Parts: sequence; C-alpha cells; structure tokens
Amino acid sequence: MGEALKGLKRTIMCGELRESHIDSICTVMGWVQRKRNLGGLIFIDLRDRTGILQIVFGEEINKEAFEKADTVKSEYCIAITGKIVRRESANDNLPTGMVELKGESIKILSESETPPIYIKENLDASENIRLKYRYLDLRRPDMQRIYVIRHKAAKAVRDFMDSHGFLEIETPILTKSTPEGARDYLVPSRNYPGMFYALPQSPQLFKQLLMVSGFDRYFQIARCFRDEDLRANRQPEFTQIDLEMSFVEAEDVMDLNEKLVQYIFKTILDVDVKLPMERMPYKIAMEKYGSDKPDLRFGMEIENISEVVANSEFKVFRDALDNGGSVRAIKAENCAGMGRKQIDKLTDFVKTFKAKGLAWIAYKEGEIKSPIAKFLSEDEMKAILNKMNAKVGDLILIVSDAKNKIVLQSLGQLRLHLAKELELLKNNKEFRFVWVTEFPLLSYNEEENRWEAEHHPFTMPMDEDIQYLDSDPGRVRAKAYDMVLNGEELGGGSIRIHVSSLQEKMFEILGFTKEKAWERFGFLLEAFKYGPPPHGGLAFGFDRMVMFLTGTENIKDVVAFPKNQNAFCPLTEAPNVVDEVQLKELGIKTK
Amino acid sequence: MGEALKGLKRTIMCGELRESHIDSICTVMGWVQRKRNLGGLIFIDLRDRTGILQIVFGEEINKEAFEKADTVKSEYCIAITGKIVRRESANDNLPTGMVELKGESIKILSESETPPIYIKENLDASENIRLKYRYLDLRRPDMQRIYVIRHKAAKAVRDFMDSHGFLEIETPILTKSTPEGARDYLVPSRNYPGMFYALPQSPQLFKQLLMVSGFDRYFQIARCFRDEDLRANRQPEFTQIDLEMSFVEAEDVMDLNEKLVQYIFKTILDVDVKLPMERMPYKIAMEKYGSDKPDLRFGMEIENISEVVANSEFKVFRDALDNGGSVRAIKAENCAGMGRKQIDKLTDFVKTFKAKGLAWIAYKEGEIKSPIAKFLSEDEMKAILNKMNAKVGDLILIVSDAKNKIVLQSLGQLRLHLAKELELLKNNKEFRFVWVTEFPLLSYNEEENRWEAEHHPFTMPMDEDIQYLDSDPGRVRAKAYDMVLNGEELGGGSIRIHVSSLQEKMFEILGFTKEKAWERFGFLLEAFKYGPPPHGGLAFGFDRMVMFLTGTENIKDVVAFPKNQNAFCPLTEAPNVVDEVQLKELGIKTK
Repeated sequence: MGEALKGLKRTIMCGELRESHIDSICTVMGWVQRKRNLGGLIFIDLRDRTGILQIVFGEEINKEAFEKADTVKSEYCIAITGKIVRRESANDNLPTGMVELKGESIKILSESETPPIYIKENLDASENIRLKYRYLDLRRPDMQRIYVIRHKAAKAVRDFMDSHGFLEIETPILTKSTPEGARDYLVPSRNYPGMFYALPQSPQLFKQLLMVSGFDRYFQIARCFRDEDLRANRQPEFTQIDLEMSFVEAEDVMDLNEKLVQYIFKTILDVDVKLPMERMPYKIAMEKYGSDKPDLRFGMEIENISEVVANSEFKVFRDALDNGGSVRAIKAENCAGMGRKQIDKLTDFVKTFKAKGLAWIAYKEGEIKSPIAKFLSEDEMKAILNKMNAKVGDLILIVSDAKNKIVLQSLGQLRLHLAKELELLKNNKEFRFVWVTEFPLLSYNEEENRWEAEHHPFTMPMDEDIQYLDSDPGRVRAKAYDMVLNGEELGGGSIRIHVSSLQEKMFEILGFTKEKAWERFGFLLEAFKYGPPPHGGLAFGFDRMVMFLTGTENIKDVVAFPKNQNAFCPLTEAPNVVDEVQLKELGIKTK
Repeated sequence: MGEALKGLKRTIMCGELRESHIDSICTVMGWVQRKRNLGGLIFIDLRDRTGILQIVFGEEINKEAFEKADTVKSEYCIAITGKIVRRESANDNLPTGMVELKGESIKILSESETPPIYIKENLDASENIRLKYRYLDLRRPDMQRIYVIRHKAAKAVRDFMDSHGFLEIETPILTKSTPEGARDYLVPSRNYPGMFYALPQSPQLFKQLLMVSGFDRYFQIARCFRDEDLRANRQPEFTQIDLEMSFVEAEDVMDLNEKLVQYIFKTILDVDVKLPMERMPYKIAMEKYGSDKPDLRFGMEIENISEVVANSEFKVFRDALDNGGSVRAIKAENCAGMGRKQIDKLTDFVKTFKAKGLAWIAYKEGEIKSPIAKFLSEDEMKAILNKMNAKVGDLILIVSDAKNKIVLQSLGQLRLHLAKELELLKNNKEFRFVWVTEFPLLSYNEEENRWEAEHHPFTMPMDEDIQYLDSDPGRVRAKAYDMVLNGEELGGGSIRIHVSSLQEKMFEILGFTKEKAWERFGFLLEAFKYGPPPHGGLAFGFDRMVMFLTGTENIKDVVAFPKNQNAFCPLTEAPNVVDEVQLKELGIKTK
C-alpha cells in the first residue's frame, strides 16, 4: 500500500527549516521518527537525510489530515504540506527547533512494519542484525553522517588531484595476478575454460605502465581485493587512493601527498595539519618506538641501556649482551606504585611477543624496589635510573634478549598497551603524522630460507646502498616511505625501479628464475625496454582514512555494504550456490 | 642503464613554453620524438603529456652535452636543462613553435629499443599489436587526449552531482547475482567451498536499498561486469554513471539528467545542449523510426501507407493487411535514379531483418517506375506518392508484412543504412538528443512462452495502465525513459516499484514462484516492508559517453587496458592458468 506522488513535489528538506521560513507553505517528505497523539493534537517528528522537523496536526486545522496522521507509525514514509509556524516552546536540541510545520495535508507514501532495529544514534545491536538489515542500520543519523563525510573526502581527493595535474584513469578489475603477496580472488573464464582472471590486490603494475605511457601523473580511487583471513579492520574488498608520478624522487612524492592529506583534513574537519610532516628513518622508529608505525602522541620512548649494564654479572642481561642482543627499557611515569599483579599481567603481555620476561624498577620515595636489585650493584641501578631520566614515582620496565627484534617489538607493544591502560590518550584529539622512511628493501624469511621484498619487488633501493645488493642484501635500504597517523599506517609507497636490468636483479634476489619472472611480470620488463621514466607513487587506505575522519574504529561502519568476518554478506547472502549450468559453461566443478 | 635524477627537478612541461619564457633557464623531461644531427647542431623534438618542444644542442654551446645528445634515439627518456630562446624559423604547427630550448646539459634517464609501433597520431597498426604494447599505444598523443577528456568528464559528473546533493557511495563488487539478465562473472569463495560471489552487472539493488536507507540522492561512477559474447562496442567490464533519487517522478529524473548531460557537453566540448530535450513516446519512435533509439539528425521517417492501399488487390499487400500487418514506406530523396543492382542490395539488406522483400517506386521526370506498378492502379500509385510527399527524383521503398515489428524494424534499419550510404551525416557535428518514454513494461518471449521485463523487474508501471497487468500485460507501459543521442542509447532508467505487493506481483507475472522470488530478491522485498520511499534513477554508459566526447568509434580506445573480442588481454595475458593449490583451497576443479 502506498499513495503515489502524482505531481506532489518536495519543496524543502526537513533539516533546512529555520525562522526565516515562518509563514511559508512547504512540502516535506521523510520518515516518522515518532508520533504522539495528545488529544486534539498529533505531533510527528519527521526525519530525512538533513535532520528532524516537528509536524503538528490539529483536529481543528484539518480533520481529515488529522485522522490520517493518526494512522501513521514509526518509519512510515510520508509527505506533508502545510505552513511553517513558530513553535510555542522552542527545542534547543534541534536546529529546526524554533519552528514547526502545521500539517494541512498528508500522503502516506508507504507503510512500515515495526523495524527490527531502532533508528537512533549509537545503536547497541548485534553486528549480524545490523548487517542483515543494513538498509535500516544505514538510516541511523550517525551512519548517514559517515557517508556524507566519505563522499566529501573522496570529492576533496579528486579536487586536489585534479588541480595538481593528475588524471584519474581506470584500471581493470578482471586482470592477472598481482604481486602483493596476498591471496588473489579468482574469476573463471568462459572463453578459456580452465583459465582464470584475478581481481587486483592493487593497480600497481598498471599504474607503472601508465607512467611508461607518459601520463605523468595518475591517480585513482580504486577498489582492491585480497582473499585473506579477515582481521578486525579488514574487508575482502577495500578502497585505496592510488597515485603515481613520473620524474620524481621520494621527497617530491612525500611533499605532494602531505599536502593532499592537509587539504583533506582541512576540508572535512577544519583541522590544520602542519607541514612538512616529520620524517623518521625506519631504524629510529624501531629503536625508539619498537614499531614502523610509531604513535608519537605520547613519549615513553624505548631507551637502550645496554651500555649502562655492559659489565653487569646478571645472567639474563649477560646472555642477551653476549649473544648480540640488547637490554632496553621504557619508563612509565608515576607508576612506581603499580601492584605486583598488574606487573605480572604486563609480563604476560610481553611474553606474547616472545620476550622471556620483564624486569622492573620502581623508584619510590626513599626506596628503590626491584626483583633484579639483588643482581645489580647499587651504582648500576642508579645508572639505569639516570639513563632513563627517572623521577621519584616512576616505574622502569626492562626487556633483554639476544634478538633485538624481540626486545624492540615487545617494548614497543608494551608502550602502546600501557598508554591504553593509563589512558594517556583520553580526550586527545591530536592528529600526529610522521613519515617513516628508509625502510629495509628486503627481509629474510627464515622459514622459507629466502629474501622477501619488504614492500614489493618494484621498490627502488637507495642509491648509496645498491652496492650491497649482492654482498649484504639485508643492509640495503629502500626508497620507500609510509605515512603514519597516530600509530597507524595511513599510506605507503616508494620510488620504483624503472631499469629492466635492476628489476631483473631484484627478481633474482627474491628467488625467481628468469623464466618465472618473465612469465609473471614479463609485460612490465618488456615495457621497461622502451624509455621508462623514473617514477614513484603511493597508496592510501581510503577506508582507514575515513575511519580517522569520522572517528570510527570499525571498518564495517565506513563500508556501505560490508562483509562479516567470514567474508559473508548477511544482507544479500553472498556468496551463494549457483546453477550447475553456469559452472558447466565455465568448465569447473565443485568438490 | 639510466641516470638517476639526483635532485634534478623538472621546472616546466614541454607544451607550456611560449615567447614569455624566452631567456629563462628551464629543465624539461620527456621522450625523444625524433633527433636530427645537422652537422654542428643536433635537434631533438622532446615530447611529454602536454606537447612537443624543440631542443637544440650545438657543438659550440656545450661539447659534452652535444656528444651525449648525439647518442639518444627515438623514445629515449631524457632530461634537459638550458635556456629558452627564440626560434630562428618559427613552426606554426606547434604551440611552442616560436621558441626552442638551447640544451646545456642532458641526462639520459633511460634508453629505448626501437618501439614495435610508431608513436604518432592516427596509427594504423593491428589491434593485437596495439593491445600487446598498450603502454606504447597510450603514448600516442591522440590516445593521451582521450584520457584527459575521460578524466575531465568524470570530474564534471562528480562536480555536478555533488552540487546537486548527490552522495557518491561505493557498492560491493563481490556480491550476489543481479537480475539484469546477462551472464554473471563468478568468484569462488574460499570460506564457503562450492559457493560463489557474482560480480555486479549494475548496482541496481544496492542503489534501491540506499534509497530505503534514506540517502535521498545517490550516485556512483561504477564498474559493472557482464560475461557476454562481445560485440564490437562491448567490454566484459564497463563503467556506468549510476544514480538514484527519492521522492521523485519520471520528469524529475529526466530534468536532472538532461542538465547533467548539458553540463558535461558544455564543460568538455563547449557545446550548448538545448533543454528541455525532446520527449518521444516509444510508440512514436517505433512508428516513425522503427527503433527505440531514433537518430533524429535526418528525416526519412517511416510512413504508414496501409490505408492508401487498403483496397489493393496486390497479393503481397493483401496478405499483410488481412493478417493484422501493415504496409509502410520511407522516401529516399533524389534517389529515383538508383540502379537495379543497388536496389537489389537494399532488398538483401532488409531481408536480414526478416522482411520478405522490398517494393519500390522511382518517381522520375514524366515516368513512374516500379516493379509493383502492374499490381496497383494508377490512382493507388499516385496516392502512395502523395502520401509520401514525393517529388520528382524521389525513391519510395516499401515493406509489408503480417508482423508490424518486421515492417518497422526493417524499414528503421534501412533508413539508417541509407543515411550511411548517402552520406547524409557527413560533416554533421550535431548532437541530437531525445528522451524515449512510455516503454512497454513487458515483452513476450515466444520461444520460452512467457513475459519478460523490458527493462528490469523493478520498473514501475504507469499508473493508468496498472489495471491491465492481469488482463493485457502487453498493453502496460512503464515509467521508463532512455536518453538517446544520435541514434545510440546514452542512458536509461525508470521509476521503480517501491511497494512490496506490486513487486511480488511483477515477479509472479514474470513466472517466478514466490519461493524463487524471495530466494533471489528476498532482501529487497524485505526492505520494502519498512517505509520505502518512492524512487527512481538512471544509468549512463560512461564509456559510450566518452566515445561521443572524443569522437571515437571504438570502445577499446576509451578503456585504458581493454580486453579483445575474446575477453582476453594481450598485454597481461589474462585470463591465465593458476596453481593447483589455489584451486584446491577454493574447492574447485577444472575439467
């Protein structure tokens, strides 16, 4: 059941009405947020994308309309015409709160059953119900705001890129396996039974080819796909701001991209991002924060106290130092009073990152308490406190290991963990950006006993390190850069190799035979024969960026129709079974 | 081999240089279009995205640079620094033709083998070579221009939609089969072996759900997929401008969309499209032009001469008329002199559209020539010429059949064919738009003996025709509209059904059982229970729009990395074989 519009036109949106509209005749259309019948008067809060407007129907204004209005229920979709009048008692909580619409006629455009979820802000419903009735979940004003911001952010990106000479060029979705290292989604081909397209994990190779084509500056807000087990903030398909530039070096790419981010944050949040953003080499980030995504909104940096305890007889430290490792610590200010149980929990925490234990020193008024006090001299204890700049009341937390990676990672994680526990970032509205640079080009996969690309195989080594490619691959740094915001990677990129011989060498180091390299990436190697320009680029995770812009912590909130943890869509019930006929045409069988 | 930039920065693009730059020191980077060594002087035409600049190296200017410049060949990628000077003999064919750059230093950024295709306008190379070396094909200036226009057109769409309150919202690529009637591309699921996602043929259902969500105005420049046998101007993946609006009727949607198209054509081509565009009911389009995509740039309309020959004894006409058919004709002006062979070819042509034959009357000076003259009275012949408004020199071409569809279609195609043969549209730069409206809601599939949706099953019937849904489904017209440009469909859409009961009835008429309808579209039917707004929308073929904007007739020219006729990409060689391991994980086998 539903009345047709039959020429009735909306004249204004609910949320737009103000005192200046008083005495005008308006037609509004939207959904019934609530209805109250107070005897001779019916009040309807009418909601559309822009906000809520109070409508009043009176038996004495128009009896027919009054009676019809009395039949509506929550979430009915209705159209009302009437005069805007001043509200007797203004509602300061509503932008439209000074006025109301005196309903003279009403059309019921469609009815509604009782919705399975409430249409209200900050809904506390199960994820499955929210996803199954996504169209109702999206009716909620906090969800609507997210998509307004997402739209505006995409628009801001495009405006900025356009004004900086970038062309948005669409690259294929049905393509060949790309080399990002994750699992591809495959699409069986009907014309070539037994063969498959792959959905792109990124437009990486195509954007490099576009540089070879001389397009000079390319960008795309591009859909990408990875068939991975889904962690909390991942989706099988995601959106990235992808860009590539020719005739540039790393600084040029960073310079442009921080301006882009500055523009977005200004446009959407009216926040001023100060440029240039800080640059921090990977090595420093690891040493000070135990992470290549350092959160710089708080201190608690990791200090290397190896020298301070260099002569210690304490066996734990001795073992670490004698085997090429280190002893490092962080300082939790004003935490000297932390109880034993809490510290035990911290110890358990660092153990999940393979640390063997957690030593600590509580610097109390007139007393230094520590389980390792008996193993260290008083001078050593003091030297540690000194090195850590400790004040009375501080707690020093120490990890040592023969593997520096374990020391750094566990302290880095402990640092973040403590910041959360201690609520160091409560009410912190800061956006703290940093470029992490000079990443290692390669990392050694001990399980598979081979070198892997840290970013991807197309990343250019730093000029001064190329000499070590054969002799000491682990030492080679890359012309790669990640933009980190509040401890999360917002985007990353690199200058690319554009010389065939170097690209082939990279494949060789990565253990590809020449045949294999050509089989997979021959078209890129071939393209590099014809005057490729030096080029580099970057990709931002657009979903994550929108999470920052909207203050949302769940990626599913910023994707209109997301999948659940099993890559399943409770709304459409995709994936689903298909007809045997379809499979037959594709020449495939399910097991 | 290739020199690194090492801090060298491009200061200006090649095509930007003008007289005002004379005496400034510039660094340009690009590709060698050609090099000539004229003794003591070397001339290089350097090309980048913006154009071509002449560079000159002199033995006397800088000997080292001169010698290095002499080593470059076509398509080397180079960087040159030097002073801009006035050219001795200006080249009026180049925008930069008043100046040249006096090369003082040169870096060879990368070398090039002889490219397999020429980098020049209007290349006449085989499609396969062009696609295999797409990155070189895209270097050609005419190809580069296309992607600049494509970028600008997409930008114009987004600017317009944004300023009209539309939100761009991304809908899933991994989803469930959509009901556009074409074959879906499938994606096997790893989490649910034996199940599949489908790639969307359009975002139809999602955009309707977004209207149920109250987003009010949605758009998206969206990738869509159809696994169909490829005709000349089709690609397996294509891009559409997709939009949907709430609280609107057909006129509102048409009004907005013709303004959008006006804006695009003004922005890109500086062409003024006059609004409102003509509206033409489907029935008229079929009767006058034998097509639902009438090309109105020329006349030659089809006339119904059934009444004129109503009493004729001519058996061919008699059979047609007595069996519910018709006799119709078009007039080819000044074609009375057409030879017998040519007319025979036209006869063969109409036969490919199932016409049984083609009668004709040549109205010559003092003579009426016609193979059917002997079957018709002189009065009848004259009445036909009269009805056709024929003048001396005209040729009348007549088709009759018991099936009106055959008469109309064959004459409609003959009309287009003749326009091409007679070059009626040569040098015609007109963009002739028309909205075709009042489409039939359903068409009868005689092979399968059932009614099918003419557009799709979500199209709203016209209010005044709903009464015939049961009694005479073929008579029901839809609230559907196509925008036609120069005889091609640019876009199409409709007002949608938003009432559950009517939507269920539509599925019933289309032969779905209730179970089947709910199985496939249950989530839409469910959504309609909760106050859906009246809504409608439209989708434009963006690739085709870019073809119009660039004057290109081959869709492959407007898609950066297209597939060939077999849905194969000669560049990347997709589709391709994949590892057995991958298939095993997906639980599928190839046969």
